[in-house]
Order: sequence, then C-alpha cells, then structure tokens
Amino acid sequence: MATSYLIGLDYGSESARGVLVDVSTGLQVASHTHAYRHGIMTQTLPGGEQLPRGWALQNATDYVEAAEAILTELGNGRDIEGIGLGFTASSPMPVAANGQPLSELYPADPHAYVKLWKHGAAQKYADDINLRGGSYLENFGGKVSGEWLLAKAVQIAAESPETWNRTARFIESGDWLVWQLSGRECRSLGFAAYKAQYSEEDGYPGDILAGLETRLDVPAPVGTNAGYLTDGWLQKTGILGKAAIAVSVIDSHVVLPAIGAVRKGCLVGALGTSAAYLLLSERYQPLPAGIEGVAFNGSMRDLWCYESGQASFGDTLAWFNKNFPRSTDPGESFDLYNAGAAGLTPGENRLVALDWWNGNRVPLADSRLSGIIMGLSMQTSSIDIYRGLMEALCFGARSIIDLFEAGDIDIERVLMTSGLAQNNRLLIQIMADVIKRPIDVPELENATAVGAAIHGAVAGGVVGSYEEGAVRFGAKSYRHYVPNSRNASTYDTLYGLYREMSQSVRARASMHTLHSLPSADAGSNNADPHIERSVA
Amino acid sequence: MATSYLIGLDYGSESARGVLVDVSTGLQVASHTHAYRHGIMTQTLPGGEQLPRGWALQNATDYVEAAEAILTELGNGRDIEGIGLGFTASSPMPVAANGQPLSELYPADPHAYVKLWKHGAAQKYADDINLRGGSYLENFGGKVSGEWLLAKAVQIAAESPETWNRTARFIESGDWLVWQLSGRECRSLGFAAYKAQYSEEDGYPGDILAGLETRLDVPAPVGTNAGYLTDGWLQKTGILGKAAIAVSVIDSHVVLPAIGAVRKGCLVGALGTSAAYLLLSERYQPLPAGIEGVAFNGSMRDLWCYESGQASFGDTLAWFNKNFPRSTDPGESFDLYNAGAAGLTPGENRLVALDWWNGNRVPLADSRLSGIIMGLSMQTSSIDIYRGLMEALCFGARSIIDLFEAGDIDIERVLMTSGLAQNNRLLIQIMADVIKRPIDVPELENATAVGAAIHGAVAGGVVGSYEEGAVRFGAKSYRHYVPNSRNASTYDTLYGLYREMSQSVRARASMHTLHSLPSADAGSNNADPHIERSVA
Repeated sequence: MATSYLIGLDYGSESARGVLVDVSTGLQVASHTHAYRHGIMTQTLPGGEQLPRGWALQNATDYVEAAEAILTELGNGRDIEGIGLGFTASSPMPVAANGQPLSELYPADPHAYVKLWKHGAAQKYADDINLRGGSYLENFGGKVSGEWLLAKAVQIAAESPETWNRTARFIESGDWLVWQLSGRECRSLGFAAYKAQYSEEDGYPGDILAGLETRLDVPAPVGTNAGYLTDGWLQKTGILGKAAIAVSVIDSHVVLPAIGAVRKGCLVGALGTSAAYLLLSERYQPLPAGIEGVAFNGSMRDLWCYESGQASFGDTLAWFNKNFPRSTDPGESFDLYNAGAAGLTPGENRLVALDWWNGNRVPLADSRLSGIIMGLSMQTSSIDIYRGLMEALCFGARSIIDLFEAGDIDIERVLMTSGLAQNNRLLIQIMADVIKRPIDVPELENATAVGAAIHGAVAGGVVGSYEEGAVRFGAKSYRHYVPNSRNASTYDTLYGLYREMSQSVRARASMHTLHSLPSADAGSNNADPHIERSVA
Repeated sequence: MATSYLIGLDYGSESARGVLVDVSTGLQVASHTHAYRHGIMTQTLPGGEQLPRGWALQNATDYVEAAEAILTELGNGRDIEGIGLGFTASSPMPVAANGQPLSELYPADPHAYVKLWKHGAAQKYADDINLRGGSYLENFGGKVSGEWLLAKAVQIAAESPETWNRTARFIESGDWLVWQLSGRECRSLGFAAYKAQYSEEDGYPGDILAGLETRLDVPAPVGTNAGYLTDGWLQKTGILGKAAIAVSVIDSHVVLPAIGAVRKGCLVGALGTSAAYLLLSERYQPLPAGIEGVAFNGSMRDLWCYESGQASFGDTLAWFNKNFPRSTDPGESFDLYNAGAAGLTPGENRLVALDWWNGNRVPLADSRLSGIIMGLSMQTSSIDIYRGLMEALCFGARSIIDLFEAGDIDIERVLMTSGLAQNNRLLIQIMADVIKRPIDVPELENATAVGAAIHGAVAGGVVGSYEEGAVRFGAKSYRHYVPNSRNASTYDTLYGLYREMSQSVRARASMHTLHSLPSADAGSNNADPHIERSVA
C-alpha cells in the first residue's frame, strides 16, 4: 500500500506555511512557506490609494496564490488524505454571491479588502455596540473588540454603504479559503463563536446591523469535513487522492492537538506577534471578568475553551529591534539584545513597562491605549529597556492568568508555543519566574501547521479523535522550565507596579487624549522656526 | 599704551574653557578648552577602586592642570587686568589646612575627592536634614537638595568619620581654585547662600553637623576682588600685569552680565547638561513653593536672584543619542535626530514624557525619581521619542515658570543661553511654543566664560558696574523666537498630561520602589535558564 499524507496550512499575518505529514510514521517530511505578495497594507492600497491611520488590510488573492504554491510544492503527485488550515482571525472580507472578493471587483475601494485582525479603525463601532449591550456579551467579558467581525461589518456599513450593499457574503478569510478549496461554503464554529458572537442557542446577535445575518452562515464544529479538494485544485496542484478539507480554525487555536493540549486544565500560550491564551475546561461557568471569550466545540471537540490574549507580544520586541537596531542585520541585532538581556538580573534595569503597544485586548478591549516605560534614568541602557519590554510582556501574561484563577478555572499544565517560545529561552524563563509556574515548550517545528494537519486527519477520518491525532502526529518532547523562586520574588514587586499602571484610570484617560491628537498638517509645522533677529 | 585683557574661566562638568577679552575693543580675541584628565568618575577611582551606584566624583588636580593650560595659552606675555571664574556647584571637597586636597593625600579614599554637583548618593542625608527642618529652609523651598554642600558634608561625616576628621576646610571647588590662584581663601556668597544655606544675618545653619562651620568661611559678594594672581602662577603662565581674581560664581549664574541680564525681570535659562533658571528681582518676597533658592548679592549686585532648575536637560538628549545612535558619529547622529524631529508637528508623535532622567530638582528635590515615556505604540519611531524628550524638557521648564508666576515674581524678558540654546533652533522654538513667551538667545560665543571675564573686570576695577560691563563686553545681538499660537494650543493639552504625571503620588511611589531594588548579584542571574527536558 502506498504512503498517504496530511497537509496542514498555517495562514499567518505575513505569510502562509504548509507542512506535509506522513500518515504512517507520523513525521513531518516537508514544509513550505509563501510570503503574501502585498503583505499587511497599512499605508496604501495596491493601486497607491492612501489609507487612514489605524488601518490594516490584506489582499485575498494573496491567500489563493499562497495555497497554490504550497499545495503544489507539498502535494504534487502525492496521496493526500486530509487538509486542515489555521487562519488569523478576525480577518473578514466582503465577497460577491459566488465568493469573488469585492477587492477584485473594486480595487480602489479600501473597504473591499480583508480587514486583518489588527485593523484598529473599527474600535469606535465596537464601542457603540458595547454601549448598546446585550446578553450575548456575557460570554465575551461584556464587550466585543474592535478587532472582531461585528465591528468591522458595522464600519463598512457606516463608512461605505455602497460597499455594504455590494456585499453578498461577509466571511472570515479562513472560511473563504475553505470555500475556494472545497467549492463549498462551510464556516467554522470557532470563528463564528469567538469573533462574531454566535451561539448554537441564539445564533448571531440580531440587533447589530440590518442584513448582517443574511451575509453570514450557520457554522460547523472543529474537525467537520467541509468537503473535498475540487477538481480544479487537484489539477493545478497535482495532488492525488480524495483530500478532505477540515473547517478552518483560528490560527492560535489550531495548534492545540499538535502539542498535546487536548485535555481539560491545559493552558496554552501562543506567543506570536500577538499572544493568545487558551484554557481548556470540561465545565462551563460564567466568564471571569476581562476574559475575552468562551465557546464549546470551537477549538477542541467536547471541551469549553476560554480565550484571552495580548494585542502585542513579539511585535513589541520587533518594534524595538527595528527602531533601535544594534546591527544592520536584524537577526544579529536581536541576538545581541538577547545576549545582553540575559546578563541582567531581575530588577537590575530598575524599569517597569506597560506592554500596550497595540492597545489592550484583555480586560479593557481598547486599541486606543498605549505603552509606558517608567524608571528611565541616565543609567538606563538600551539593553535595560529591551529586557524591560520582555518583562512587561510576561507581566501582561500574568495578568491574564490572574483573571483565569480569579474565575476559578483550573490550570493543571502551562504550555507555551511558537517560534519565539522555542527560540528565546530567556523569555520563557522570565515568563516562568513571573507567572511562578513551570512551563512546557513543545519541541516541534511548525507546530501550528502540524495542528492543522491533525484537524485534516480528523476531518478525513484518518484518526478517530483528537487525542489519537495528538499521539500519532503531535510533539514527542518538551523543554521544561522551572521558576526560580528568588527571581519570582523580585518580579512580584515589579508586577505590583505593573498592576498599578495598568489599573490607573488617569493614565488611560491620558492615553486617550494622546490618541485623539490631530494628525500632522502643514499649518503647525515648525521645521522653520519663527525667528527674528534683533540687535541689543 | 599697550592693550590689556580680561580672562574668563568657565569650569564645567567635563572640561574648563577660557576666553581672552580685549579691554579696549570689548571683543573676544581667543579661547581655549581643556578636558579634565579624569572626567567624571562614576565607576572607579583613579586607582581602580570601585564606587557605589549614584556617585559622581572629580579630581581637584584636574582643575589646576586646566587652569595652567588655559592661562598659559591665553595669558602668556599679555597684560591681564582681571580674571573671573564660574564653576559647577555644589561641588565641594575636603582639604587640609594649607588647601591641599585630601584626595592627594589619601587617593584610595572615595570621600577624599570632589563630590560633583550630580553626585546623587547624599540624598538620604538631605532627607534627614529636611526632616529636622529649620527656618533657614524658608528661602530654599523648605528643603535642601542631596546635590548641595550640607548633605555632602553629612555624608562624609556619617560614612567616613576618619575623612571628616582629616578635613580642615570643606570648600566648593570654585572657591578652592580662587584660593590656588590668589593664595587667599576668599569664598563666594553665591556658593554659600545657594548651596550651603548661608545668610548674612544668621550665617550657616548651626545644627547640621558638629564642626561644619569651622570648616567653612564668611563669604564675599560677587565682584569682590579676592586677591591677585600669585607670583608662582605669574611665572608658570607668563602672565604680565596685576591680574585681579574675582570671587568665584556658580557657573549657571556667571553668565548674567554677558547676556545683558543685569536688571530686574530678566529670566535666564541656562540650558546645559542640566538647566538652571535665574530670575532677577528688586524685591524680596517669600519663596514660591518649589523654587530652589533666593539670595541677594550672590549672583548680581544689588538684586535678588531666584533660582530654580531641572536636574537633567541636554543630558537627556545626549543619553538618547548615545544609547540609540543613528550614526557611528555622535554629531551626525544628533543632526539626523534634529532634522527628523523638525519634520514633525506638535502632537504628531502622540507621546508625552516626564523628564526626570536625573530625578527631579524642582519642586520635589528628589534624585530617586525617574523618567517616563507614555503613548508608545507600534507606530512610534525613534524620532518621535527624540522629539518627545525635547518636548518633555520644555514642559519641565514651563512647570518652573508656572511656579515663578504663581509666586507673583515679574518676568519681563526670557533669555536662553548655552551652546544647546544657540545651536538647536528647533528646541528653542518648541520652548517658546510651550512657555508661550518670546525668547531671546544671545549671539555670543562662550557666553559663560565672557560673563566670568566681566566679573574679573568688576573685581579689577576695569568697569564701575555690571551694567557697564554688560554693555562693553557682553552680547551685541540676539536671536528672537516668537511662539506659534497653534502649536502653543496643542502643547497646552500635552502639558496637562505632563502635569498629571508629575503630580501623581502613586507614580512617585513606584519610582521609589524601582530605585530601591537590590543591585545585581550572581545568585539571581538567569542567563542560564532552569531547564529540564522531558519526553511526552
């Protein structure tokens, strides 16, 4: 019997990655990455049209281009049994009834493009939704985020009614890609529940926007077989076999089976450009204040998954390295910063920072907030600040874990995953010291894509359960970090200062004032000072 | 009749500078700078002994070496009628009865050296003095600073009684240098009044430290002739004529006559590494809360001079440029930052910073405080931060001007002086916009040293008054900056946020906690993470 394979796809913010998993051995045998042609559009559209501040768009054609490249590279001539995919969320787009993106039809209309998860310009519509309130908000900490689907839909309808009228379907990019691959629109319960506040009992919230529900659809649980790869895709990729397509999964959730997080009590931190924290539980209970969302069957079968996150994580370190490089080579610069930071002891930098470089997601869901560094002095070095930022990211994580604990949701094991988690040992050690718990980092390349492949295995019937998928195709070993009690004690003190900054109502008001300052215009520019000369 | 000259000496933190002024034409004809061999000692003594954190020492022999180099270069073969000198303050040192610095006798004793003005390790002794209180504090905002002479004397007596016992005279470095040059100990009323809380009525505060007063001396008003250059100095420098030595003047005060600030209502900002603000008045009135000091005859004859300041100013920009250079050449890096910052409009950086990189001098007199940057986001650039720091320095200046105004002391004209003020037009324009007043920047090279030369002219009888000295030897033209009302309005908003940060009692408590964190030690270093490996 010929070998068969699974393909897992991981659609991130800058690129997509695929892995090929051998069903018989359970091992990854190949991977391939494809960067999006247009990347993240924050300044201009492909045609050069300017974008307002706070926008972050993507071009749907980039996703198809990436799929074709990856599936061809990995699948050509191979028998593929299942394909799963994880996708950034909420990254919705307006499409025509046949699924064609409006951005193809109206390329000069900024509202016709994918609004990437980090698109921040819909926040005020989220504020409006939250002011109105509604019982559906109970499972989402009492408020929706400006990053989620509902606010983005309202933004289009409010700012470009013409675009909204042209929108036949309003769909998450991950669901849209499943539609492209399988020829069937089959939406994900994970996207719908966490990002559009769908519940099996009540459907989507009804009072947000006229005509919204007709542009959405009833979603299916994770692991559902959405259909099979179409003949068109089989031809252009050269894939053999009857490749089942699993419904799409939120990218930060799709990793769970790859790292053994298939049981209650597992807390998983996915430390990417932003950070997501998922806590699996058998029990439903009222959501702890500030936690972002909870849903059943949307992340892992037969479990509730509580979700929380930090709006920026690796992003913040990359921001620092980009703006204050220690070398012309960014990788070398990071290495120098990490090596320098490793030479400091906790508290030695005498700094505390607030990690809100992209606003705050939990518990405030407010993208107008911003970061703080306190404690700066003539003795402060750039390495002190870099380490201060690492510590701030960990304080942000602890504040989320505190919320879970306050909500009495059991945490039995902490797992941290991502390239950052695997490569930056200092960061994970600081994390363990700050949260005062052991941390396991799975030793698995491309864990997110492998998780997607396991979803494909479930959808294609290759395995009977996620537990079986985890054992056969998931991580085989873990790096285990133990907190240092002395460091933990210093970090308790610093975390107290962090909490004070994060809870300061006055600081938040100041951040709002800063955010609302008028943008640059020529009238007040003082590049040319108002100088006269006088003689004494 | 042969031409005669004046020499003005400006002893700064890193180097000393001298100018040669032609008495007949009133013009500078030469200048010379000499860097201190040992610079500012913050890490080790000349012999390699480690210094604790917060220390900042200098070596008195560097001052004599600089005097010899400068006086020889400028005075050799010339008829010098007067020499004046400005000096950093408070920078006191312990000396033997014959004036020999204890650092020459006991080079391994850190307490035997000059404690430079920015030496921060005496703060706790200032706190003790302030707790005890005393009516003499009324003219100093109710508290002495850890940077001043009294606290530094107490530090020596408390931490090294042996050094204190060996101290015959405890003397400001500027007074000590006058002693070296003239052979006579003749102290400055400016140093004594502002830095040792001396008054003509009550002398020095009596209850600070046993035996302190016997190590000090009765001081003389500015412009007093302390004596003439000794034969030894005449021989080694080749100076001709009977060079009168004026009593020393605080470096930030000595500039006044050089820039025409010889009348009531003149507010002078001396924007150096730190900033000093001097306001001349005919009237004595109770000191506005937070203003640092007031004295008569200590800065300008027959006028009260109210003093205030910022503990860091140009320092802060230099810190940023050093830690985050845009070029390997520091000057070019500064140019790039300034050019970039000039391209921004007020508020465009959406940042507000608190300029306490060296602690706060006014109104809190607390060196344990530190700086803040608020508003950081993924959009923030290094240039945004640089401009934010410039703006913060100007907000700090405005907070001081606010205090003068609250105290009802008239301000008729604002003058800003220093190399920074002359070279950085953007900074002064921002300053005008922030303080909402026109600013004059005198166009005069080496203004501080020229001011010192005018003190020499008064002491030597070359002129009959400071007014005459200012007209004959001072600045001939000024660059006049006019506030832009639109910028001023934006800065009013940002200044409101600055005020809130600066008045936050909680933020101060957090800064104290950060300052009190234990120093680095090997025990808690986590360069080597606590990692175990496990198999799933």
